[in-house]
Amino acid sequence: MAKRSQRKAPSSQAAAPQTTIEHSIDFYAHHSPFGANASFTLGRLGRGGGFGLDLGRPAEQDIFVAYARKGEPARALPFFKGSGGASLAAFAMTAPGTDTTAQIPDPTQDAFYRGWQIFPEAEIERDLAWASDSWAAGDLTFRILSPFGPVANPDTADAAATRLAVLPALLAEIELDNSASDEPAWAFFGLAPNDGTGVRTLSHTTQRNLLGIAGETRFALAARPDGDAVQEVQPWFIDQMLSTGKPEVHGLPKQGGLLLHVEPRTKKTFTVALAFYRGGVVTSGIEASYFYTRYYSCVEDVLDTALARAEELKALAAQRDRELRDSKLNPSQQFLLAHATHSYYGSSQLLDSGGRALWVVNEGEYQMINTFDLTVDHLYFELRYHPWAVRNALDLFCDRYFYYDEVQDVLRGREKHTGGLSFVHDMGICNQFSPPHCSSYEIPDRTGGFSFMTHEQLVNWVLCASSYVLTQKDDGWLFERQGTFRETFRSLLHRDHTDPTKRNGVMGYDTAKCGKTGQEITTYDSLDASLGQSRNNLYLAVKTWASYVALAKVFDALGDPELASAASAMADRSAATVVSQFDKKEQFIPAVFNENVDSRIIPAVEGLVFPWLLGDRDATSEKGRYAELITALKQHIRTILVPGVCIDSESNGWKMSSTSHNTWLSKIALSQFVVRKVLGLRFRGQEEEWDSAHSQWQQVGCADWACTDQIRSYDGKDLGSRYYPRAVTSVLWLEE
Amino acid sequence: MAKRSQRKAPSSQAAAPQTTIEHSIDFYAHHSPFGANASFTLGRLGRGGGFGLDLGRPAEQDIFVAYARKGEPARALPFFKGSGGASLAAFAMTAPGTDTTAQIPDPTQDAFYRGWQIFPEAEIERDLAWASDSWAAGDLTFRILSPFGPVANPDTADAAATRLAVLPALLAEIELDNSASDEPAWAFFGLAPNDGTGVRTLSHTTQRNLLGIAGETRFALAARPDGDAVQEVQPWFIDQMLSTGKPEVHGLPKQGGLLLHVEPRTKKTFTVALAFYRGGVVTSGIEASYFYTRYYSCVEDVLDTALARAEELKALAAQRDRELRDSKLNPSQQFLLAHATHSYYGSSQLLDSGGRALWVVNEGEYQMINTFDLTVDHLYFELRYHPWAVRNALDLFCDRYFYYDEVQDVLRGREKHTGGLSFVHDMGICNQFSPPHCSSYEIPDRTGGFSFMTHEQLVNWVLCASSYVLTQKDDGWLFERQGTFRETFRSLLHRDHTDPTKRNGVMGYDTAKCGKTGQEITTYDSLDASLGQSRNNLYLAVKTWASYVALAKVFDALGDPELASAASAMADRSAATVVSQFDKKEQFIPAVFNENVDSRIIPAVEGLVFPWLLGDRDATSEKGRYAELITALKQHIRTILVPGVCIDSESNGWKMSSTSHNTWLSKIALSQFVVRKVLGLRFRGQEEEWDSAHSQWQQVGCADWACTDQIRSYDGKDLGSRYYPRAVTSVLWLEE
Repeated sequence: MAKRSQRKAPSSQAAAPQTTIEHSIDFYAHHSPFGANASFTLGRLGRGGGFGLDLGRPAEQDIFVAYARKGEPARALPFFKGSGGASLAAFAMTAPGTDTTAQIPDPTQDAFYRGWQIFPEAEIERDLAWASDSWAAGDLTFRILSPFGPVANPDTADAAATRLAVLPALLAEIELDNSASDEPAWAFFGLAPNDGTGVRTLSHTTQRNLLGIAGETRFALAARPDGDAVQEVQPWFIDQMLSTGKPEVHGLPKQGGLLLHVEPRTKKTFTVALAFYRGGVVTSGIEASYFYTRYYSCVEDVLDTALARAEELKALAAQRDRELRDSKLNPSQQFLLAHATHSYYGSSQLLDSGGRALWVVNEGEYQMINTFDLTVDHLYFELRYHPWAVRNALDLFCDRYFYYDEVQDVLRGREKHTGGLSFVHDMGICNQFSPPHCSSYEIPDRTGGFSFMTHEQLVNWVLCASSYVLTQKDDGWLFERQGTFRETFRSLLHRDHTDPTKRNGVMGYDTAKCGKTGQEITTYDSLDASLGQSRNNLYLAVKTWASYVALAKVFDALGDPELASAASAMADRSAATVVSQFDKKEQFIPAVFNENVDSRIIPAVEGLVFPWLLGDRDATSEKGRYAELITALKQHIRTILVPGVCIDSESNGWKMSSTSHNTWLSKIALSQFVVRKVLGLRFRGQEEEWDSAHSQWQQVGCADWACTDQIRSYDGKDLGSRYYPRAVTSVLWLEE
Repeated sequence: MAKRSQRKAPSSQAAAPQTTIEHSIDFYAHHSPFGANASFTLGRLGRGGGFGLDLGRPAEQDIFVAYARKGEPARALPFFKGSGGASLAAFAMTAPGTDTTAQIPDPTQDAFYRGWQIFPEAEIERDLAWASDSWAAGDLTFRILSPFGPVANPDTADAAATRLAVLPALLAEIELDNSASDEPAWAFFGLAPNDGTGVRTLSHTTQRNLLGIAGETRFALAARPDGDAVQEVQPWFIDQMLSTGKPEVHGLPKQGGLLLHVEPRTKKTFTVALAFYRGGVVTSGIEASYFYTRYYSCVEDVLDTALARAEELKALAAQRDRELRDSKLNPSQQFLLAHATHSYYGSSQLLDSGGRALWVVNEGEYQMINTFDLTVDHLYFELRYHPWAVRNALDLFCDRYFYYDEVQDVLRGREKHTGGLSFVHDMGICNQFSPPHCSSYEIPDRTGGFSFMTHEQLVNWVLCASSYVLTQKDDGWLFERQGTFRETFRSLLHRDHTDPTKRNGVMGYDTAKCGKTGQEITTYDSLDASLGQSRNNLYLAVKTWASYVALAKVFDALGDPELASAASAMADRSAATVVSQFDKKEQFIPAVFNENVDSRIIPAVEGLVFPWLLGDRDATSEKGRYAELITALKQHIRTILVPGVCIDSESNGWKMSSTSHNTWLSKIALSQFVVRKVLGLRFRGQEEEWDSAHSQWQQVGCADWACTDQIRSYDGKDLGSRYYPRAVTSVLWLEE
């Protein structure tokens, strides 16, 4: 947890063990409902944030969370522009002049904030938990709750349950402790959208029992009326209003919120709903609306439900917070899983297309739709909370985003051979679904980024589909998609070698879609050659082995022992090929076979997660049927997980490849799980330090972007894949 | 017209007389369809612009209008960030390196533009016409057409006519003259949205006969297929693509457009449609959708119609351009009317509320809805092109945005008396309709800006309603609203004096809504006391006189000679009061009567436009029944329209008040019409210089904001009311 030690932890947040490294509280986190592709992003000091809808970056609203007593300055958390950084001292205590002209004041100007006293970072305690995020300073505690939990399939579930599950809202709690004062106190929670649109007070435009403000029809915050304790305001000078406690409502100021009154000698907590809404068709290519629009007619409707169901929603958030806090995860791990979960929900999007649910996870800052090499990493989280989403995405890959190709031997003249079924990299970008059989990403004649990922997405389909169908025991879908499973097996074989006797269980041919000069790449498209190239790639070889292991189980389940046996035989060949590449002298397996790339890569072991997920402990045992493979991979890990190879000597964090400084948090988390749980390798005394380094990367180097995947290993700087959902692979840690 | 003399005018734009002052081409202008509250704003060099929907400022898209021949650099108009200003020379000619990594390039970085050769300002000719805006440089001419004309009442008109009238689209023409070259040439027209959303190619998502790009579901540009001559592209490096002519389509670059091919020894013009679309409910308070959504299902539908009807739309634009060019207006006046018209349409908004048309003009950068003191200035334009819009707004004022008040004598203890009917300042802000009987602007206890404008809006209703009903001969509406006319008369009397014998025809009491310390203000809320205060105000006194003159005619039309006579008697008293204030020594009338404010103000004569509009030449004649008033006002103008009083000594422009540097273009245009046409005062030799000063203000000082109303008189700097519709008062000049 990102926590300061200056203050005692609030009683509701039991003390967690302290990490050895002092971390920062100055970083953005997503705060998002389920499936709204929306976030109330907050946490970077002095930078604002707030409501963002369909936005691949933090919004730029000024957020005001503050309090004052009569005659005191307004004390605020540093959540608006100019409220943070080194110049804080210059802000405090100068009361602004009164407005005596008709000139409309500009809230973006410094003069507006002269009446503020901003809490410096050292006086703020922050606690990012699994389903909440809290800031405490002075007498104020501000908490955003983002409750989440299991969601049933919206196409078949009870409508009442779905209605609550898809509610596009969060809750906030503002707690003001005035118990030591004889004066009344006022808290304020509100915002300035800063995009020219301004705000409106809700009581003016709705008959519902709501007080608060909205921005157009797109977002709003509101509380229930509570005598004089809760008042809507739309003032020119929030700080002045707070110091007098006199509510001001004017139609023109482009900022507003709730003025909350606390009696002397009293402590009070206010509950505020934060709602998002976007009506109508929001996508092109495939026309779809937000699923929540079935149940909610407008943003006020969302607020009303959020407040009516506030106690249930709070209990749900508290349950998740408690689960994580009570888990065996150390504080850094708890932070990393919480941070990743917040960002996963921020990219989640449940659409209604022609009356059917359409599941999307958007690709963070890139906003690509259902990028398949992310889908396979979201698998563990989605199987835990909403497994139907995996099936939903797989169906769309089967029905629209598949293709049949030819393959070519790029090392020998690019002669073309029969290929087979595979799937595209993604389904489009920025709410724009790409045409059938096309991704937005892949183009021919590339050797690096933007090339095809045919083999990788083929194994991703096999691994996701078999994991879904076997763990969820969805026999209907297994029956329905049996042809696809068979075709993926045939396609894997065709990509190995035309001559069945020469097949070694590893990809040998590239798709002919790569054109005259390109070659297939893996999801690690931004790393060096060690992970970029697909053919003969160690990482992909082990995933291919895992695919054959999984297909054997699927064919067994389909009652086809012949195919099951054929798949098992291919798994044997994959394993043998990988083992044959083991460098006995250096005690590792090179990243690419037979092509002079001898980088050391951690993702060698990534594929081992799938037999584990399918419950096949024999497949991952040093004493099982793949004993040699497992022994070789364990030794590979022992060899490379040392400083200067795959442990960065400067930061003490994990490097995916010994030859690249670009490392990926999602894959670190996944590989850590495999190393510890599947392979049973422990590195006592080092593990917590590694975790601490990784959480520091997120809190410091990646502070501008909420959860970030691509990181520079020596200093933790964000390199790409920012504002990203993928790091929920860390949910696997809960299985250890 | 803003025109450079380096080039000959294009043949389609006949030469206009040159003004004596060299003007700038470097300014923004709106380019807007009817009623979409949308604009493709363009014209500030080096700054971009493009599609803005419901936006009170220019959008920030990069717009690419360029061409190249094989091996030549790409030559572009300076319509993208970094393409303008002093550093132009640094841009040209360095080809960017090719992209060899998976890092997604950032089109906002300078490196992207190194291959461009940007036309410097001196090589560009611009011609802003009434319904078009053209830029010519090198072999390229780019023209945006914003056709407009009479629009019938959408509640009663033929649906087919309304469908075309409300089409939320513009046309563009890209003409490339390759007649002197033996090489093929390519033009490019496209954009980068720069808001993170990117673009999509249209052929991927629609079966319609369109090639082009769209941004989400909100805007798009497209042409009809034309063999290989028109191609959709979505490239990483537009400049590189242009230099090779090889179309590039990739899903990831967040920019795209049309690559247009011109054969050697050929000149070709391409027609491109520019479309806006916003579906669903867009307002709150009163829920409403865009009227065009009745007829168009999506942005592609809009494009399809725009291209199908392109010839009609071009003819309509050409007709308006010709009318203005053939008018008696000098080039500066033509520019001012054209510029104002472009900005008026940019703020126009036709909504569908519960199946009925709801007319809005938004208040430019402030985005207030149907601000009444703007409505009265849009009157002349709307009566010319869509008079039903005046009635539509007046009805909403009558049905929802009226109130009844008490009045108080603020000079004597604020004793309260019976007031009467009046209307609010505005109907809300930023698509957020305010509650019934409330504006977003007015609050109590103010003496300056944000106070109530009760008397001003009362006379505005009378003047708009009588002008509408008498010029349009809408007897049905006259009958329907007769009660309102009667109540406005009674309300005017109550605001004069409680004792009928003491009424002098001028406002004497303020509304009690002003509270304990406030007093009513006029629309000139940002000027000094000379125009700020309503009570005993010369400007408002003459408008009150005009209201009585108009009411007398309305009551005549209603067959109520008694009331007509009473109204006429009040007009006599107003006139007598104004005349009595004439300062014989200084030969002017002070701005505020009997309260020691002796500023000289031009708006003294503003009210004379209404009797003129109603055809009452007697009322505005020095020999008519108000001879003394007219004689006094004529002398007032002669006295003040001199340098150092109401002509700014530095700029040679008009100052509304001798004691303020804040002057307003809309009111200058209106007063100029009254001075020249109604009062018959001419200032030969000076008039063109004044017009030239005013157009220079818009092109230089207000360049960032399209048409701007509030201007600093000595240097033309924008002071407020930017991006503003109001200056269409200049349409009156066509009546001279």
